[in-house]
Amino acid sequence: MLFSKLLRRRSVILLSAYFLLHPQTPSLAQRPLPIMPLPAHAVQGTGILPLNSGLQVRIDGYTEPRLERARDRFLVHLAAETGILPVPAQPGDRPTLVVKTAGPSAPVQQLGEDESYHLEVTPTGATLTAPNPLGALHGLQTFLQLVHTTPQGFAVDAVTIDDQPRFPWRGLLLDAGRHFMPLGTVRQTLDGMEAVKLNVFHWHLSENQGFRVESKTYPLLQEKGSDGLYYTQEEIRGIIAYARDRGIRVVPEFDMPGHATSWFVGYPELASGKGPYQIERKWGVFDPAMDPTRESTYQFLDRFFAEMTALFPDAYFHIGGDECNGQERDANPRIQQYMRQHNIKDNAALQAYFTARVQKLVTKRGKVTIGWDEVLQPDTPKDVVIQSWRGQKSLAQAAIGGNRGILSTGYYIDLSEPASRHYAVDPLEGATASLTSEQQKLILGGEATMWSEFVTPENVGGRIWPRTAAIAERLWSPQDVKNVDSMYARLAIVSEKLNDFGQTYKAEYEQMLNRLSGRQASPALKALASVVEPPKEYDRADLSRNHYSYTPLNRLVDAVPPESDRAREFRDLAHRIASGGASPADFQQAREWLTLWRDNDAALQPQLPKSELTAELAPLSRNLSQAATIGLAALDSIEKHQPVESAQEQAAALKQLKTPQATLLNMIVPGVEELVAVSRP
Amino acid sequence: MLFSKLLRRRSVILLSAYFLLHPQTPSLAQRPLPIMPLPAHAVQGTGILPLNSGLQVRIDGYTEPRLERARDRFLVHLAAETGILPVPAQPGDRPTLVVKTAGPSAPVQQLGEDESYHLEVTPTGATLTAPNPLGALHGLQTFLQLVHTTPQGFAVDAVTIDDQPRFPWRGLLLDAGRHFMPLGTVRQTLDGMEAVKLNVFHWHLSENQGFRVESKTYPLLQEKGSDGLYYTQEEIRGIIAYARDRGIRVVPEFDMPGHATSWFVGYPELASGKGPYQIERKWGVFDPAMDPTRESTYQFLDRFFAEMTALFPDAYFHIGGDECNGQERDANPRIQQYMRQHNIKDNAALQAYFTARVQKLVTKRGKVTIGWDEVLQPDTPKDVVIQSWRGQKSLAQAAIGGNRGILSTGYYIDLSEPASRHYAVDPLEGATASLTSEQQKLILGGEATMWSEFVTPENVGGRIWPRTAAIAERLWSPQDVKNVDSMYARLAIVSEKLNDFGQTYKAEYEQMLNRLSGRQASPALKALASVVEPPKEYDRADLSRNHYSYTPLNRLVDAVPPESDRAREFRDLAHRIASGGASPADFQQAREWLTLWRDNDAALQPQLPKSELTAELAPLSRNLSQAATIGLAALDSIEKHQPVESAQEQAAALKQLKTPQATLLNMIVPGVEELVAVSRP
Repeated sequence: MLFSKLLRRRSVILLSAYFLLHPQTPSLAQRPLPIMPLPAHAVQGTGILPLNSGLQVRIDGYTEPRLERARDRFLVHLAAETGILPVPAQPGDRPTLVVKTAGPSAPVQQLGEDESYHLEVTPTGATLTAPNPLGALHGLQTFLQLVHTTPQGFAVDAVTIDDQPRFPWRGLLLDAGRHFMPLGTVRQTLDGMEAVKLNVFHWHLSENQGFRVESKTYPLLQEKGSDGLYYTQEEIRGIIAYARDRGIRVVPEFDMPGHATSWFVGYPELASGKGPYQIERKWGVFDPAMDPTRESTYQFLDRFFAEMTALFPDAYFHIGGDECNGQERDANPRIQQYMRQHNIKDNAALQAYFTARVQKLVTKRGKVTIGWDEVLQPDTPKDVVIQSWRGQKSLAQAAIGGNRGILSTGYYIDLSEPASRHYAVDPLEGATASLTSEQQKLILGGEATMWSEFVTPENVGGRIWPRTAAIAERLWSPQDVKNVDSMYARLAIVSEKLNDFGQTYKAEYEQMLNRLSGRQASPALKALASVVEPPKEYDRADLSRNHYSYTPLNRLVDAVPPESDRAREFRDLAHRIASGGASPADFQQAREWLTLWRDNDAALQPQLPKSELTAELAPLSRNLSQAATIGLAALDSIEKHQPVESAQEQAAALKQLKTPQATLLNMIVPGVEELVAVSRP
Repeated sequence: MLFSKLLRRRSVILLSAYFLLHPQTPSLAQRPLPIMPLPAHAVQGTGILPLNSGLQVRIDGYTEPRLERARDRFLVHLAAETGILPVPAQPGDRPTLVVKTAGPSAPVQQLGEDESYHLEVTPTGATLTAPNPLGALHGLQTFLQLVHTTPQGFAVDAVTIDDQPRFPWRGLLLDAGRHFMPLGTVRQTLDGMEAVKLNVFHWHLSENQGFRVESKTYPLLQEKGSDGLYYTQEEIRGIIAYARDRGIRVVPEFDMPGHATSWFVGYPELASGKGPYQIERKWGVFDPAMDPTRESTYQFLDRFFAEMTALFPDAYFHIGGDECNGQERDANPRIQQYMRQHNIKDNAALQAYFTARVQKLVTKRGKVTIGWDEVLQPDTPKDVVIQSWRGQKSLAQAAIGGNRGILSTGYYIDLSEPASRHYAVDPLEGATASLTSEQQKLILGGEATMWSEFVTPENVGGRIWPRTAAIAERLWSPQDVKNVDSMYARLAIVSEKLNDFGQTYKAEYEQMLNRLSGRQASPALKALASVVEPPKEYDRADLSRNHYSYTPLNRLVDAVPPESDRAREFRDLAHRIASGGASPADFQQAREWLTLWRDNDAALQPQLPKSELTAELAPLSRNLSQAATIGLAALDSIEKHQPVESAQEQAAALKQLKTPQATLLNMIVPGVEELVAVSRP
């Protein structure tokens, strides 16, 4: 009797807890789990597993040190998200998560290795089953993300999950060439990747601006090409082990024949030009390129590959191959003569010749070659993997020709695009959608790319996260997981979790914002910062032509997230108002925000001249005020059903306000534009 | 001509920059440097040293690896506070800080070693001169703190500083016994100590709740007494080296004969009772204590000291000695008989006997004994150093008897007192003020104590910092540096700097606050959090009698800083209003805040039941609203010059509102009380 009373009581509490936590959701059945990436298959159960008295983890059956370290890390992260300290062992008083793993993973993580797991959570305990530790690692991350706050304390809702990834290659490229990324940053990046089940760390290790790996065979590479900023081989082995612990492969990239000036500082004989060479201090595509016509080039690369393929155990080896402008070759009579002698008709053909030679050297070391789009030529061997920065079209072309491919177009997280735009890009949509299913199997997945012209270790976290979680979901979850509102709702939760688990981008944002004024940022500065974004695509680069590689990245544009949550919320609000679907609360909220933004300038202007870093924000602050004033007029007009006579001029004015100021965009403008559009006579 | 124009222009700009930055300061001469601790002597120069093109550091004369590491760390911290990346070497284009050190420091840092330095900053460069690396370390920290934001970019104002500490012993005790503090936390603590020139890390390593050092001689100490949470000897050597790099001595404490239950789990024969013993899981003073009547106890300690005095190179060795309640001894007939046989009249005498024996064992190993107040007995040898937790009186008593002393009374940072209260405590005021100057020389300095009943690695940073900077100033700066307003103004700046240099307490506060509701904390929750404080002195302990050592410290009381800046600002404001010195802006600000606080409850209450951790805040939120309502009525009365008839009842109501709720104090009450007091008829 008491028992059934308790049971009934619990379900009442649960139901109310559910509605409090998810007031907007119409029914339990439709509610997505608050996690990213969403699992392939999940059935929600009844009740919750309470965690307030702690949780013990027991590894049943097969185990290995990696799994035990994963358990320890799991417990640390669980403590971080709950604040519940591990209780000294007292058998039987805490629920148990049992981890059952059938057997070992491959000694070196393989592409396509089984990553599946089965997780069952009931009100009395949880079981995680996986064929190998790789799946178990993923399942532990799912459990951590499922932990949430309830009126009864921290808990996981009962659920049964069967999960596995859609694509086997889910990568993140970190460019350590342009701005060096220290070990701590690399480790932190791997931590974040683990949390969202990304499994390939693509380490871009050489660039015009820096060669970042210790070579014992050719030590002048790092000695003259890195400004002292490089990874020792021991450090690299440490990172590879760290990544393996987290279910992540490490694929190195040595970009050639272009993007290679830093190699030539120590070894000018590798280049097509005369030299001497200096490390590049600007951004862009530069003329220097390896000389594809000399045997000594291939001898050098052969010995270099011998060293590097031994250092990096992964089966794949990236040789870059992008953006070689051919200038140095055109200017070198010896190369021109070689081309004529060998019937090489143009620079593209010369590049094809180089790629073919290099690919053989990679194959000789037992590795599979990856390269950017440009390496795909009519004769490219079938086992070369194409990484596309040009789009699904070139990926489809590769697949038709029998080459495997990885999509990076649309996943360029350095271009400050919203998460929704990346989320909308699917490796099997567009040109690849019409491939046969056999051809589609050649599309291995995708990779987010964190190019580092405009990031340093300080702000790189806020450029990668949380947006990359949306890309991770695209690559892991079923193709029909596409609801953008759901994605953003879960992204906000995952962002909190990422910070619980050791990402520091929120704190770094605060610090950078405080530094602008030399004191704690004022509410007015914060209000401005919360609705501006860096310019999109290559506009940032265009506006930063005078940048050197060491130009400080300490301005507001460097601090703010690539996507403003507040501006997105306002745009959604404006859209509801413009389309007639707004509630009175929506109108009130819009008015409140617009009033705040209109009046913000008066508070902010007197503060700005005190610091060189805030002085440049004066026009942007005025811009925000102007846009908000127009928005308020439009709102008045809509509420009073009185058209605004000057709406056309206002639309023109808004167009002006879209011009970047202090290299920043006022992101309330699109929402205001929508309001103005419906206020026209 | 152009040159003098430029010069004139610069001074105009500088002057305006100065007034913009320090609008409240009447004259340049009176402006204290924005640093903590304030130097012994400083003369401000003319002009600024601009840092926007970077800074190079050159070590002239004597150097050693420690100094070179300090330079590297300096450059990293400079980059963190400015966001200016180190520019690749291009001779002559950047100003230089020249560091000139005459010769080496002592191989093991000594008490009273010369810590002085001379720093000269001019518009063209800077020079730091010191007799040894210890002084140079301090000077580098001063330089970092001097960096500030100007309309021309980051800069240091021209200045000449001659600096040295007032006291040679400036310590911070970290209690790793009650809650274990991992290596990262210890290192972070040392980083903060370096920034504010503290020079003794007092490591409280054994407690009833845990024995935290690996002993190879008696391995059951850590194996049975630590729950697996202890430092290996290698880790300890690492910390000692890390501290030495930062000019900090490491003094270990092994507390005995009480506070030692954890020893007895593995070695029950050491105790005065029967055993068996378990690690204590509650807080308080416990009965178990070492048996001072058996020779085997001293044999054990002799071998233990042999091991530990070799591990810790510092000349001082802390044996605790506090709070032994004598219960176990009273209950042991064998001990009672021993006391009768040896004419030991009571437990105090027994403790004196024990201390004398232990002190001899410490001396035998070439170390100087330190102990808490209780070790001071009529026969205590003159070289024993007394650390006082009871007050200046016992320190004076020690000095009169010829013993040296360290003050900790008034520096108990675990008791959630405001910085101003610690700042007001001086080792040479009160009972010690009337000592002869020879006796005063026996007062070595002081130590802040971070006892860890109610802190974990997560929130310990926010308990130590920034308040401990005020204690550091008390111990370093001249005795007449006492202005509380200046202290708070500089404390806010130093708090920003500490975060630039790697403290994470601001971020941890945000994370803990977010965790309360499972999402980003709402503005209403933040508003409440910003004006509450943990109860003072031992009230927190009294309200937490049901706590176990593993009780989660994840509530609002654990997250908020011990001192609310906003509440202090309001109290100051209320004081100006009550005393007739308020401006119209003061009145407006008070009304704005009080209105916000009054209305906050309505926004917050609906959110609170959603999480177990916020549910308990409902009464506190109402409390804030009630106090603010009373405050607004008082404000009306003052502005209208109409006495409030019910002022007496309101005063009584406010008294009620001072009762802690959810173990938290509503800190706007004192300010409101002051307003109500002047609104009485």
